[in-house]
Amino acid sequence: MASDRRTLLADAALDVLADEGIRGLTHRAVDRKAGMPTGTTSAYFRTRAALLTGLVTRLVRLDQAELHTLAESLPPPRTVEELVDGMVLLARQRLTGEGRRRSLARYACALESVRDRELREILVPRENAGRDAVRLFLAAHGVTDVENRSHTLLTCIDGLIFDRLVSGGEVPREALEGLVAAALRQDPGIRSSRSSRPGASP
Amino acid sequence: MASDRRTLLADAALDVLADEGIRGLTHRAVDRKAGMPTGTTSAYFRTRAALLTGLVTRLVRLDQAELHTLAESLPPPRTVEELVDGMVLLARQRLTGEGRRRSLARYACALESVRDRELREILVPRENAGRDAVRLFLAAHGVTDVENRSHTLLTCIDGLIFDRLVSGGEVPREALEGLVAAALRQDPGIRSSRSSRPGASP
Repeated sequence: MASDRRTLLADAALDVLADEGIRGLTHRAVDRKAGMPTGTTSAYFRTRAALLTGLVTRLVRLDQAELHTLAESLPPPRTVEELVDGMVLLARQRLTGEGRRRSLARYACALESVRDRELREILVPRENAGRDAVRLFLAAHGVTDVENRSHTLLTCIDGLIFDRLVSGGEVPREALEGLVAAALRQDPGIRSSRSSRPGASP
Repeated sequence: MASDRRTLLADAALDVLADEGIRGLTHRAVDRKAGMPTGTTSAYFRTRAALLTGLVTRLVRLDQAELHTLAESLPPPRTVEELVDGMVLLARQRLTGEGRRRSLARYACALESVRDRELREILVPRENAGRDAVRLFLAAHGVTDVENRSHTLLTCIDGLIFDRLVSGGEVPREALEGLVAAALRQDPGIRSSRSSRPGASP
């Protein structure tokens, strides 16, 4: 029961953060958002740091669940089209409704984590169904540097989502296609003269 | 003189935001950071909104100046290598020293701007020397959809910088090469059939 209450409060904290920004995130605001008596949030999360940790832990769990559900609902992508379909869907989910609120909270928490090692460790990119799908896809298409290429691809999508979160509109399919094409492209080391510039790795 | 004092306070506000996050940004903290008597910041920026507006205006001006200086110091990029050189340099500037502090402030302000139309208008991507260089480069290489492609390219770089800002490390040259390759790639509409799935472009 206690753990349900904690989850409920963490969800309310997520909502406060999304609606009012990091400045608005106080124990009292979470009590209000959760419709619970003043003091409830402090009883479960004594400090502001504990509240943030609880919020971020919940956020990561929800994100993981979302990616899992998305991966279950789609076949493992075999063509570029199918991979892009999944990415379009994910971008849309992250820009609307609940997903939008979570995105706002996610970027705010990422910025907080610059000054907070504990948050950073919770937020560190981890194994998940979405990352797996991208990784398997790239490997199946002969990409050798799968780890870096998938990280770059997913990080760029984050950049596109951040931009639309602030400015409105959808992430255009064409942009996602470009990112997949970039991830699949042949190792540029093969084409260009690198010998003159050590460190600018292939 | 008044305007110098304003600039000085806006710079101090930027520092406070970078060091302490949006929660730490108070008039008093800016007084302290600027080494000025309590009340000075309030005299120049009466409300917190005015302080944020002053900060963001100054941030945009510094960003514009940085891009201008960078563009002056490099020849207009003619090859992919040259364009990537400029992007590597910019990413490095935005991840170290003063640039890193400005990046932290920039992303925090962008998130604030979701709830603040005035900030959003100041932060809206505008003409600048960096954007121009990318646009001219793409046009010279036969890209037809220059506006969207440069926006996507620059937005993805922002995503890569955000990631490194939080996790550490540099933006890898290889990732930037991939983004340029994506921006230059032939209009995918030429290759595949659009008729079967309108909007789900090739």
